[in-house]
Amino acid sequence: MNLILLFESDFQANATIATITGRRLNHVLSVCQARVGDELVVGLLNGKTGRGKVLSINQSMLELEVKLVEDPPEKLPLTLLLALPRPKMLKRILAAVSSLGVKNIYLINSYRVEKSFWGSPLLTEENLKQYLMLGLEQACDTVLPGISLRPLFKPFIEDEVPRIIRNTMPILAHPIALATCPYDIQKPATIAIGPEGGFIPYEIEKFIECGFMPVNMGKRILRVEIAVTAIISKLF
Amino acid sequence: MNLILLFESDFQANATIATITGRRLNHVLSVCQARVGDELVVGLLNGKTGRGKVLSINQSMLELEVKLVEDPPEKLPLTLLLALPRPKMLKRILAAVSSLGVKNIYLINSYRVEKSFWGSPLLTEENLKQYLMLGLEQACDTVLPGISLRPLFKPFIEDEVPRIIRNTMPILAHPIALATCPYDIQKPATIAIGPEGGFIPYEIEKFIECGFMPVNMGKRILRVEIAVTAIISKLF
Repeated sequence: MNLILLFESDFQANATIATITGRRLNHVLSVCQARVGDELVVGLLNGKTGRGKVLSINQSMLELEVKLVEDPPEKLPLTLLLALPRPKMLKRILAAVSSLGVKNIYLINSYRVEKSFWGSPLLTEENLKQYLMLGLEQACDTVLPGISLRPLFKPFIEDEVPRIIRNTMPILAHPIALATCPYDIQKPATIAIGPEGGFIPYEIEKFIECGFMPVNMGKRILRVEIAVTAIISKLF
Repeated sequence: MNLILLFESDFQANATIATITGRRLNHVLSVCQARVGDELVVGLLNGKTGRGKVLSINQSMLELEVKLVEDPPEKLPLTLLLALPRPKMLKRILAAVSSLGVKNIYLINSYRVEKSFWGSPLLTEENLKQYLMLGLEQACDTVLPGISLRPLFKPFIEDEVPRIIRNTMPILAHPIALATCPYDIQKPATIAIGPEGGFIPYEIEKFIECGFMPVNMGKRILRVEIAVTAIISKLF
């Protein structure tokens, strides 16, 4: 947690005094070991970043005097279409892509996504938001990426993807593609990344019909979190 | 585990029949759900990769008829000088850099590395090897990266680093550097990556004296595992 994310609800009596409890307080107590007078890096969810001066702190509550003056770092002009990962990896992957500055995320279906994943209790709006906020706290960002679930592949690729990729470079990560991933493209992109085992040929055909360029990422099979980071880092 | 790593000790009576137990057997039973006659991707530690045909399988043992014919994927011409991460992150970071194909790893000291990390029971040769092998199994590689511990910064940077960086592009990841990270450098590199909080000015000076080019990775603070993946992916 390199930035303490603040919410409108933290400011009650006064517009500049935030009162913090729970996980964030525990972090400030145990990791930052902050004392009265210390300044902490803070940011308002979907707002500006700045400093919070510790007015009081104890085991149950932290009071900060907050000055929000700077814009958060810019997002990458990037939409990620990611086959829904297995639930136990979801938290880390969403935190990673959020820390990298991805602007929009669609968690999509694919033949090789296990049906049971879509029934996971982790997939609530609130949980997804929590995972994304871990990435914001890491990267000193405040702006939540957009996130949407698309449990049906066909209507998504036919009806929505053509609009999503408009004015972007659409790229499909595909292990056996001939082209290698381009570097430093300096323009908006949409990246599609398959599940463990990859998209099936029908799905790949649909992406290519839409205009996606299949690119390989080398011979090594990487964990999704690492593959996503690798492709984003080459492109931007 | 996209490749089952085999050891010389798995081949006892016969040079082409491997007998497997423990963690690898559990994976084949529960994830691959392999049956007699199935072929699995295998590789001999520090040797070739190929296929293993299931001759027999039960809860206590798997017998494979092994054909090793292909070279493993090439390593990146890259040496990583990484400030020793906190022990609970070490396993994942080593698995990640091993999966990415890093050739040599030095875990080094820095003022901001907590002294206690060097006393962690995780830092045995055997444990480090295990973590690196997780990355090999992920990436279908067989060749262990070199790994060395350097708990003293000054003798390392003064006596060893000049030799390590010879004929490579030496790069220092440094948040406030003016230069951005180069792309697709097409030559050997040495990358130095600091601890949480970064190298201190004295250390940065020493790296620059050696000839390291400080580069920034953008405004976002990334987890070490993600930062390492990001810089490697830009360079290669």
